[in-house]
This record gives sequence, structure tokens and C-alpha cells, in this order.
Amino acid sequence: MQQLTVIKVGGKIVEDPDSLTAFLKDLTLIAGFKILVHGGGRSATALAEKLGIETKMVEGRRITDAEMLKVVTMVYAGLVNKNIVAQLQKLQIDAVGLTGADMNLIRSNKRPVKEIDYGFAGDIKNINAPALLELLKQNYLPVIAPITHNGKGTLLNTNADTVAGEIAKALAFDYNVRLIYCFEKSGVLLDENDEKSLIPILDHELFRQYKSEGNIHSGMIPKLENAFQAIDAGVKEVIITRASDVKTGKGTLLR
Amino acid sequence: MQQLTVIKVGGKIVEDPDSLTAFLKDLTLIAGFKILVHGGGRSATALAEKLGIETKMVEGRRITDAEMLKVVTMVYAGLVNKNIVAQLQKLQIDAVGLTGADMNLIRSNKRPVKEIDYGFAGDIKNINAPALLELLKQNYLPVIAPITHNGKGTLLNTNADTVAGEIAKALAFDYNVRLIYCFEKSGVLLDENDEKSLIPILDHELFRQYKSEGNIHSGMIPKLENAFQAIDAGVKEVIITRASDVKTGKGTLLR
Repeated sequence: MQQLTVIKVGGKIVEDPDSLTAFLKDLTLIAGFKILVHGGGRSATALAEKLGIETKMVEGRRITDAEMLKVVTMVYAGLVNKNIVAQLQKLQIDAVGLTGADMNLIRSNKRPVKEIDYGFAGDIKNINAPALLELLKQNYLPVIAPITHNGKGTLLNTNADTVAGEIAKALAFDYNVRLIYCFEKSGVLLDENDEKSLIPILDHELFRQYKSEGNIHSGMIPKLENAFQAIDAGVKEVIITRASDVKTGKGTLLR
Repeated sequence: MQQLTVIKVGGKIVEDPDSLTAFLKDLTLIAGFKILVHGGGRSATALAEKLGIETKMVEGRRITDAEMLKVVTMVYAGLVNKNIVAQLQKLQIDAVGLTGADMNLIRSNKRPVKEIDYGFAGDIKNINAPALLELLKQNYLPVIAPITHNGKGTLLNTNADTVAGEIAKALAFDYNVRLIYCFEKSGVLLDENDEKSLIPILDHELFRQYKSEGNIHSGMIPKLENAFQAIDAGVKEVIITRASDVKTGKGTLLR
């Protein structure tokens, strides 16, 4: 099977022109097929503030009311996505920027209201693998903004880590899939203030051990649980690394 | 050859949820392949105003400075484009929303500065017909936002009428292309205040005659000249009509 790398990169990298340029150049050095999933939360928060719309977050997740949905649609699907695509085209990479509504790529359900009403937040229901496979076959580099749809005309704001994970899982039957989460730190650290405490390789057993010993920062646990779910679903490896290390393979390798 | 209809619809229709819904339902009734090109100028002007960015227009064309480029990219490629795509998906139409940067669909040059500096305005240089043909072959309905790129990493704001005209011309070798410009009036009128003065059919000769007699409103002349250029380039017919008449074939027929 051919190699496919699904890369998730956060807002901090893609919203700054210089770091975006460096990151995309590194990306071109990764061999094989690629899909890029991006965030853009900082720009969305900044635009919302300028428009007098309050940003509400619960445990790192955005509450997306109707006005905030417009903001994230404009920022993720418009500003950030199209700037990435234009920069990739400059590098002679034939990119295509898409949301989950385009080609019906990602169908989601509006998150049910329990203790918290997340508003127009989407929980992914289905990835249209054949459409993504066809784009890859035609040598496009899909650039995916974390906006999905419910098939009933409503766009939904969706966690970009989850989008990347679900895409990686959906394509694991057709490619050797590697999933890279770009991150502010060099990988998973035993001491989050000490870059030297990087865990180079993490498997289920070691993860359980570190978790039970309280050695892994609580904020990392859901990210790692998602990553191990991807591995259980056939993704060959997950790498958690700094964006500037994306081409090197450094970081924490999960398998 | 198979039938392809390229439809250009302005901001007024696509920015209002009810008129958008009605318009898209009508669109589904048009037989054959379709490409939709949309505007969104009113929403862009409204967002710019909220952000304290002044909208400057010269003869109906927007001056696009760096801040306004961000606004139009967010509104056209994000908000308006993705809402249209989500509504089409609801109608079971497999739409894909794209700018000229995506798939390198539309390459343009930054308009040279003469008396007026239009800023980040693009004059179209090339349409990637093979990529559009492939999307149509796969039964996607491309929804095109009027943002193009120069291949050097810069997005450019581009007139949507021109985008529709150039796409129609580029595909005229492969399809029987009909180009529909949706408009606020029922078509080209001899008296712009009298809907009964509609010109049902207009050819080169009649256009020259009306023009020399001063019977056609000056604002219509560049639109019609563009339309006749499309016909000279192989487009089978151009229809100028009201959006609500898009499925009927009413309006002014140019050929």
C-alpha cells in the first residue's frame, strides 16, 4: 500500500505568514500522499472580538452560537483555508481547500445538549472516503477546514483534531496512514516544562502505566486516547510533534 | 455535445436565506450539467463596515486593499460559498465550493495601476478547463467564489460576471454552453423603468443598432459586450434574466 500522511496543524502556525511559509515548505518534503487539516481558532477569536461577539470556551471547546458559526466559517473556510491553498500553489503543490460540506466529505450531527449547549458544534458521523481517495488519485493535496455539515443545510463547527483522526481512520483500508498532530511542544512530555522529558515511543501499555502513575498531563489524555483509537482502527502510526519538526519524524511516536 | 449551464448569481439573491433556498430549488430544475458562480458584495460591504474598513468603489468596482482582501476572502470563499454548498447538499446536489486558487482553477494577474489603483483585483489569465471538466464528469456541481490567485501566493478579488464568462468560454469546446446572468430586472430593457420594454432576443446587429440609437442603458453596455464576446468564443447562448426566472428561460436571449 502507498503511504498517506494526514497532518493536523493548529492556528498558531497557519495564521502567521512566516511560520506558515516555513511549515508548508517542510510539508513538501514529506514523501507520499498528504492531507492537511488546519485550525484557525486564534483568528476566529480575534475577528469575533472585533465584531463584539463574545468567545465562550468550555474545557478548551468553543461554544458556537449562530453568530460565532458565521465567524468560524469565514475564518476557517475562507481566510485561513484559501491562504494555505494559495501558498501551496505557489510551491507548485496542487492543493484544493474544502470543508466537510464540499463533496459531502464529512457528515456530522449537531452535538446533543446535555449539561452544556455547545451550539453549532458537529460530532462526526461519516467520512466520504471514496471522494477523498479520488482527489488523492488525481494528485490533489486536500486542505480541510474543520467545518462539517449535517446534510440538512446546517454547517457545524468541528474539532480539527477529530477531523484529522477520523479522516486517517477512514483511509486506513486503502493507504498506509500516518497521522501527525503538530503541537506547541516537541511531543508528549513527562514533565510539561522540560522538553528533555520527551517520551519517544508510546504504546498502549506504557500509556496505561504513565496514566495510572499520573505522569501524563491531563490535557494530553483525550488527545492520546483519540490517537490510540486511530491506531486500533488501522492507522499505522501517530506522531505528536512540533510543527517545525514535521519533516524530521521527531516527536512522540504512538503505535 | 452535452448541455452545460453556467449561472452567475449576485449577492442579493445568495445572501438572503429565503431567496437563496428558492433560487437553488429552481436551479435543480435546469437539465444537464451546471456551474454556479456567485457574488456576495453586500455581505462584504456590511462586514467591512462592522470592522471599520471603508468600502471604496469606482464605477461599480471595488477597491481591494489588503484589509478588504481579507474581508472578501472570508465572505465570498467562506460564508457565502459554504452556505450555498450546504443548501445544495440538502437538496441532494453534490456541490463543491471552490475559489480560483483551489485546483489552480483560475489564474489571474493583479490589475496594473493606471489612473486607478484597484489594489488586489485580478484580471483573469487562465481557466483550468481540464480540472472543471473532471469535476463535471464526476457529477459535482462546482460553486465558484470570485476569488482567484496569481500563482505566487496572492489571492485576488475578481469580478464574478467575468469569472462566469471566462468559465463559459473555456468549456465551450467540450459542452454546449449556455451562460445565464441573473439580474435584478427581467432582462435587458429599452426603458429601464418599464419591465414591458424587455428585449426578448438580441444579436450583434440589433445590439449595435440599439447602442447607436442610445436605447440601451450605459451600465448594461459592458455586460452585453462581455456576453457577445462569450458568444464569439463559442458559447451557444447568453441569457440575462431575473433570478426568479432562472428555470423558465425567460429574459433577454443573446446569440
